[in-house]
Amino acid sequence: MAKTKAGGKGPIPQRLEGLRRLMEMHGVHAYLVPSRDPHQSEYVPACWKRREWISGFTGSAGDVIVTRSRAGLWTDSRYILQAEHELACTGFELHPVGEPGNAGPCEWLARTLEPGQSVGFDPAVVTHRGAESWREQLDFHDISLEPIEANLVDALWTDRPGLPAEPAVPHENSFSGETAPDKLSRVRLEMSVEGAGALVITPLDAVAWLFNLRGGDIPFNPVAVAYALITREGTRLYVDETKVTPALREHLDGLAEIRPYGSFGDALDDLAKTDSVVWLDPDTTGEDVATRLEHPGRCRILYRQSPVVRLKAVKNGTEIAGFEAAHVRDGAAMVRFLSWLERAVPRGGVTEISAAEKLESLRREGELYQGPSFATISAYGGHAAVVHYGATAETDCELRLEGLYLVDSGGQYLDGTTDITRTVALGRPTEEQRRRFTLVLKGHIALARARFPDGTQGVQLDVLARAPLWEHGLDYGHGSGHGVGSYLNVHEGPQALSPVRGCGTALETGMFVSIEPGCYEPEAYGIRIENLAHVTADAEDGEAGGRRFYRFRVVTLCPIDRTLIAPDLLTREELGYLNSYHQRVRTILSTILSGADAEYLKRATQPL
Amino acid sequence: MAKTKAGGKGPIPQRLEGLRRLMEMHGVHAYLVPSRDPHQSEYVPACWKRREWISGFTGSAGDVIVTRSRAGLWTDSRYILQAEHELACTGFELHPVGEPGNAGPCEWLARTLEPGQSVGFDPAVVTHRGAESWREQLDFHDISLEPIEANLVDALWTDRPGLPAEPAVPHENSFSGETAPDKLSRVRLEMSVEGAGALVITPLDAVAWLFNLRGGDIPFNPVAVAYALITREGTRLYVDETKVTPALREHLDGLAEIRPYGSFGDALDDLAKTDSVVWLDPDTTGEDVATRLEHPGRCRILYRQSPVVRLKAVKNGTEIAGFEAAHVRDGAAMVRFLSWLERAVPRGGVTEISAAEKLESLRREGELYQGPSFATISAYGGHAAVVHYGATAETDCELRLEGLYLVDSGGQYLDGTTDITRTVALGRPTEEQRRRFTLVLKGHIALARARFPDGTQGVQLDVLARAPLWEHGLDYGHGSGHGVGSYLNVHEGPQALSPVRGCGTALETGMFVSIEPGCYEPEAYGIRIENLAHVTADAEDGEAGGRRFYRFRVVTLCPIDRTLIAPDLLTREELGYLNSYHQRVRTILSTILSGADAEYLKRATQPL
Repeated sequence: MAKTKAGGKGPIPQRLEGLRRLMEMHGVHAYLVPSRDPHQSEYVPACWKRREWISGFTGSAGDVIVTRSRAGLWTDSRYILQAEHELACTGFELHPVGEPGNAGPCEWLARTLEPGQSVGFDPAVVTHRGAESWREQLDFHDISLEPIEANLVDALWTDRPGLPAEPAVPHENSFSGETAPDKLSRVRLEMSVEGAGALVITPLDAVAWLFNLRGGDIPFNPVAVAYALITREGTRLYVDETKVTPALREHLDGLAEIRPYGSFGDALDDLAKTDSVVWLDPDTTGEDVATRLEHPGRCRILYRQSPVVRLKAVKNGTEIAGFEAAHVRDGAAMVRFLSWLERAVPRGGVTEISAAEKLESLRREGELYQGPSFATISAYGGHAAVVHYGATAETDCELRLEGLYLVDSGGQYLDGTTDITRTVALGRPTEEQRRRFTLVLKGHIALARARFPDGTQGVQLDVLARAPLWEHGLDYGHGSGHGVGSYLNVHEGPQALSPVRGCGTALETGMFVSIEPGCYEPEAYGIRIENLAHVTADAEDGEAGGRRFYRFRVVTLCPIDRTLIAPDLLTREELGYLNSYHQRVRTILSTILSGADAEYLKRATQPL
Repeated sequence: MAKTKAGGKGPIPQRLEGLRRLMEMHGVHAYLVPSRDPHQSEYVPACWKRREWISGFTGSAGDVIVTRSRAGLWTDSRYILQAEHELACTGFELHPVGEPGNAGPCEWLARTLEPGQSVGFDPAVVTHRGAESWREQLDFHDISLEPIEANLVDALWTDRPGLPAEPAVPHENSFSGETAPDKLSRVRLEMSVEGAGALVITPLDAVAWLFNLRGGDIPFNPVAVAYALITREGTRLYVDETKVTPALREHLDGLAEIRPYGSFGDALDDLAKTDSVVWLDPDTTGEDVATRLEHPGRCRILYRQSPVVRLKAVKNGTEIAGFEAAHVRDGAAMVRFLSWLERAVPRGGVTEISAAEKLESLRREGELYQGPSFATISAYGGHAAVVHYGATAETDCELRLEGLYLVDSGGQYLDGTTDITRTVALGRPTEEQRRRFTLVLKGHIALARARFPDGTQGVQLDVLARAPLWEHGLDYGHGSGHGVGSYLNVHEGPQALSPVRGCGTALETGMFVSIEPGCYEPEAYGIRIENLAHVTADAEDGEAGGRRFYRFRVVTLCPIDRTLIAPDLLTREELGYLNSYHQRVRTILSTILSGADAEYLKRATQPL
């Protein structure tokens, strides 16, 4: 389990020292290094991985604060074990986020700094909402929040990569199901309802969705680094010219003017001088953008969730059909993989990394496949208890005929994005493992079978997946589900099935979510069962008052390991659900699979 | 079902006309008349029932906005039917709150007024948080929010009652379980942790809890109209001297100085001039208090939930034992009532009101009984579909040997507060009624049986009570449970089992909640099953990592109508729960009841 960073811990203390010198020059007593980039991306391109560079921590979520004498990382439970390994001997303190009794970053700053001191930050990598919250909390302790325009890490990071320059291409209407002009009309309609004369769009997936374009600037996320600005006068896309392929140029012709990426700031300055109402999403727009518009400005700012957020989340018929089709190919690849695994492990030589490579090679055989939708979590034994484990050359281990193996992976297909987790027993599972797997399955089924009325929020449903585990004193430290983009980011808001604040979005027909309860025994094993599903209107109306009701329709097609199920723990309804799911998997995938894979499918989907 | 206000609708239009003249004099284009009082009470004394006076609507929740030409009431689904009846022909528009597609009050104002116009309000009856939210939203539409110190309704309401003047008395330590000085020490400790030099306490139940005093100023809520101020120098209670009984004066001796109620404003002005950190709860403190401290002030304000909120919600061992004891007496009264009802209805002449009076008379026989904890909802047939129905002389009807009867009632006992709903069949129930009753029961049991880990919020658990109803296309338009005071307000925060925002409080050992799912068929019948329960630490720790788990322990003791249960819809676990609950009810109450009541108890608690 020991995990040491390739390249050693050597450079981190020196980097911290360099940062502290710069902090002193700027007269600040602490400096924030959040994980996000100027587009507030979850996964960021190499040039913006400042948090990783300064700390050595490679997880996708986690913020760093450096003071003159201390340095801390705040990350959530998915990454705690990983951060412990990666931060060992760097001098960084590790703070789990969202655990009771643990000081949040503001509280920590209030205790660590003196009144009158100041905290520096790059306003491009903190949202407007985030900056407001920091300011309000620090203000009370007489600590000021000081924007520093040039990022201090960049000044030290001499070999920082350049902006990504992958080509951007059109995304066909046959996949998107709606032309970019039609999307733009719907956005403009929302703007006119709100009385907004301009809308600033900074998230990369929002830009990609709106213009039906896709890029390759961020691993796993098919987006291109760009901003968009919609005003009464027209629509502009701020993007590095070298990215714009001839096909994309033609696609955008008459729809949007192409402007240099670097001129976006000037455009904001111009906009600030108009008397427009400018719509900004406070949760996805950088404080740099907000400040540029607020300060000198004549314009009035409307802070409200961007109209793109909901429009993008609610998939149209073409997108839903695309998801279903992509999941047939993805399910076939998964079954081929599990069938291969069953044969290959006894022969020896299969490791976490080689298994992940095999799975990727099987996905690659599928039509319209573009690449993985995130770094595959191929985790054997105790590794699977690290929720977002990524095998490295140092940790890679051989799969043997014992214990559990968990694989959480997904594909980007032109017609949809997949995300699936299966946990399989490689030998004879223990009673505890079977019981816990069955409890996770009960939670998974409770959520997947849920029927719920119009207006139900994701935060309300989360507990359905947890209750069977809670009954046995078990739980998991992550959400029960997240939204998914359509050949876009595998994590997409606003909906989520999670107890976290801000999951108050009502679920609507056409929204996709993952359903993924789990159970983790540190150092021993991890269990997770994940399918994707979309919200569909129920055929029958509610009994009372004709209120609309919804159900989930699962699109993921892959057997759930029967050898890990204790059928006596399942109710008749749960068994019925499982058997009919397996029958559907078999019916659909048996038309594609042959030979040993078809045999495997038949065995793995037998009724229980 | 027709419901006409006693006294007719005559005065409302004239009152609106008078208010509009005053609005014109003050140069405002709209005026807010919220339902709350300067202490932000849910139930308000007669002198502060301005919303009722101006509109005729008598519900406990609902805000009025009057413009120069229109008038609207915003209330929630519990009160919609009642408001429809009460507002008929008054010119008031009725707006259901929290239903999608319905304009909230701010949105409505933005559409109704012109930019540059203004909205007047009395800052004493809007919380600081509320005023901030109004201001922010209206500001965007260039509409200003203008505080007007004297309430405009008061100027018209010539026969307005005076401030209530009921005596206030000490609440014995044998009931509170903690002396007032000890409570004050805990509050001061919290103040010192937060660095606050002063704490302003405006909610009446918080004052009552802190000083172990009780009053009679508000029907059903044993509180006294008073403010409290805790500073480094000392503790002061602002209360009308005439209320202070000799016993209370002695009780407060050495603990708090008694100051005139009317001098509270001056005390705030003095406090504003100090350099204290003043702790205000933005959700329970009036904007008048906040403004007085903010504006001229040297003091710094710490906006944070009052420490009293959590301390009051977490009951100590004495209070829990008191709740249990009060529920034995209350359960005996309920069983005597149901047993009487069974005999009396066939004889004829029992009405909604006479039944409620009978129940009250049976409760009065119990030791330590002080009065009802809210206006009894005694609702026959279609009346029970009005969630907060209150029978009046006009609507009162005879209970016959058919249909369902719902009674939601509670008592204030010196040792605890009760709140119980039972629904009983007076004749042979229909299949639909039995099915729906059983679904409500399934939801009730799912919530009552829940086991949940440390940190679980009420908003997470709510769905457990709804899921069985949702599965059949049914739902209810109210929360699944609320907190309860200890011989204090029957609705008490911060915890609640509800999907509404702000129910993010984690449940803790010693917190009480109601568990009360329901199902309503308009014009036909209403079903609700309500018990009170407290959170207890589970004997066993969680399996994984020793995390603490909790369960509810139900304190309400009263049979659930077996003739309304369809046992084939219950799982073995649910049947087990019901039978063991009934057995507990029988074991405890059979020691008290005799004769026909004991016979009834025995029959009503037979295993199913």
